[in-house]
Amino acid sequence: MFDKLVIFGAGLIGGSFALAIKHAGAARSVVGVGRSPEAMARSLELGIVDAVADSVAGAMRGADLVLIAAPVAQTGRILASLLPFLEVGTVLTDAGSTKSDVVAAARAALGDKVGQFVPGHPIAGRESNGPDAAIVDLYRGKKVVLTPLAENATHDVERVAAAWRACGAVIHMLTPREHDKVFAAVSHLPHLLAYALVDDIANKPHAGLLFQYAASGFRDFTRIAGSSPEMWRDISLANQGALLEELDGYIAQLNALRAMLAQADGQGIEAVYANARHAREKWINAIELAEAPAPDSAE
Amino acid sequence: MFDKLVIFGAGLIGGSFALAIKHAGAARSVVGVGRSPEAMARSLELGIVDAVADSVAGAMRGADLVLIAAPVAQTGRILASLLPFLEVGTVLTDAGSTKSDVVAAARAALGDKVGQFVPGHPIAGRESNGPDAAIVDLYRGKKVVLTPLAENATHDVERVAAAWRACGAVIHMLTPREHDKVFAAVSHLPHLLAYALVDDIANKPHAGLLFQYAASGFRDFTRIAGSSPEMWRDISLANQGALLEELDGYIAQLNALRAMLAQADGQGIEAVYANARHAREKWINAIELAEAPAPDSAE
Repeated sequence: MFDKLVIFGAGLIGGSFALAIKHAGAARSVVGVGRSPEAMARSLELGIVDAVADSVAGAMRGADLVLIAAPVAQTGRILASLLPFLEVGTVLTDAGSTKSDVVAAARAALGDKVGQFVPGHPIAGRESNGPDAAIVDLYRGKKVVLTPLAENATHDVERVAAAWRACGAVIHMLTPREHDKVFAAVSHLPHLLAYALVDDIANKPHAGLLFQYAASGFRDFTRIAGSSPEMWRDISLANQGALLEELDGYIAQLNALRAMLAQADGQGIEAVYANARHAREKWINAIELAEAPAPDSAE
Repeated sequence: MFDKLVIFGAGLIGGSFALAIKHAGAARSVVGVGRSPEAMARSLELGIVDAVADSVAGAMRGADLVLIAAPVAQTGRILASLLPFLEVGTVLTDAGSTKSDVVAAARAALGDKVGQFVPGHPIAGRESNGPDAAIVDLYRGKKVVLTPLAENATHDVERVAAAWRACGAVIHMLTPREHDKVFAAVSHLPHLLAYALVDDIANKPHAGLLFQYAASGFRDFTRIAGSSPEMWRDISLANQGALLEELDGYIAQLNALRAMLAQADGQGIEAVYANARHAREKWINAIELAEAPAPDSAE
């Protein structure tokens, strides 16, 4: 399907993409580009890439598809660095967790070539990072959100979608703004809340006593506070507007619950708790269906 | 060790206690008392209890140890109902998630016999409830917090502790006030926060879209919002004072983070996130040691 696939940053996200594409027989060769010679050598050793490019120019020569799988804040710089070598038939895409800022960076970096860039976000991850964390089935049955631009050619969007489908993923389409609003609510805000709780407790004078009695509920609630602080700082800032809006809504919700608790309004508290449990049950049932492998996924 | 153990409410908590005590050979007979004849019949069928009492008077006759494992709000009523039949040598205890309110209810119900009541709280649970959820190793390696009263005789406290140790649990001692402050922070507040987030999202006009993209991080963060709304309403109200204090601290923390985000203060945000990750890592390492079976547990 692809003669030459290029991956900028062959860590967990890019490496798993490369492994899956190769496993599906959908790329003749995979070339890696990255700033860490050690990580690149390891990617080669693990068979994630077939070759490591020694220059961006060399990497881009004859490239069909280029995936940028580096920290979101670097997307603009990487796009600017490859622009001088961007050929007409090459399609660019990314794997960043935020999209409005990536689109703005792409417009700034690529100018009238921005139509060759199809923004994307695979909804998958693991606790660990780097080439050794890459696995062939990271995307199997998972969602990939594409947020195409008005400038994108339909067949370019379709090529990116086909690559992700070859990895076993299910394609969804949103606008960049919708994407950022959705992930502010269901991902970025929960991360902020979990970090905030653990930090709050850790700063109390009796923190040691508190942690001693934290149990499995606390462990699950705060699992996402084990994520990379640098990465989540970048995501929080990149999605500042939508995240502020969600945070304000949540603070208002907590103030309402606080008032109910202060008034010992058991009925009001139970209504919130019961609505939450009900909505969560409905959601769990729905994802159990949705996360089954898609009928069109490669095997 | 015990001739006659009595359990009020043989669901998950009481049933698992009975199974573990019998497995350890620490009770000659276990008698169940409860309001639901079906649940009681099922407890008998499952071998959790050896007999179902047909009256509180009958249950209390010759009882060594009585565990109240019913919803916290019922503790006062149950203690009042057994008081007329309370013999001198009987020790009473409970398994409620809050302690200051239980102690107040016990003082009101038992009067000058309150010294026979040793308040307790096993830190263990499962998603499911009822006699069928009871398992023999629910308490193995888990903490049980006792919050003894000034009126308790040392040997009575020791008898309750010995019963829990026979179940494989590790005994901790706190005052009722300390207990409630600790669990407001590490358990009651996280439950309220998880319920609040799911309810907040469920009430948005685009809730369907949002839930469609919620992934494993959201699932873990909100797992505790799958708990019983009635039980957590009761716990929230029972621990109102301490929970309000923790909630206020958390809302202040969110307002501080909101200000950092509005100012795009990446350094400030990263400091909170990094401190949280660091504290959580330290805690995870510590519990992995602490949750190993205690050297004095029965096997």
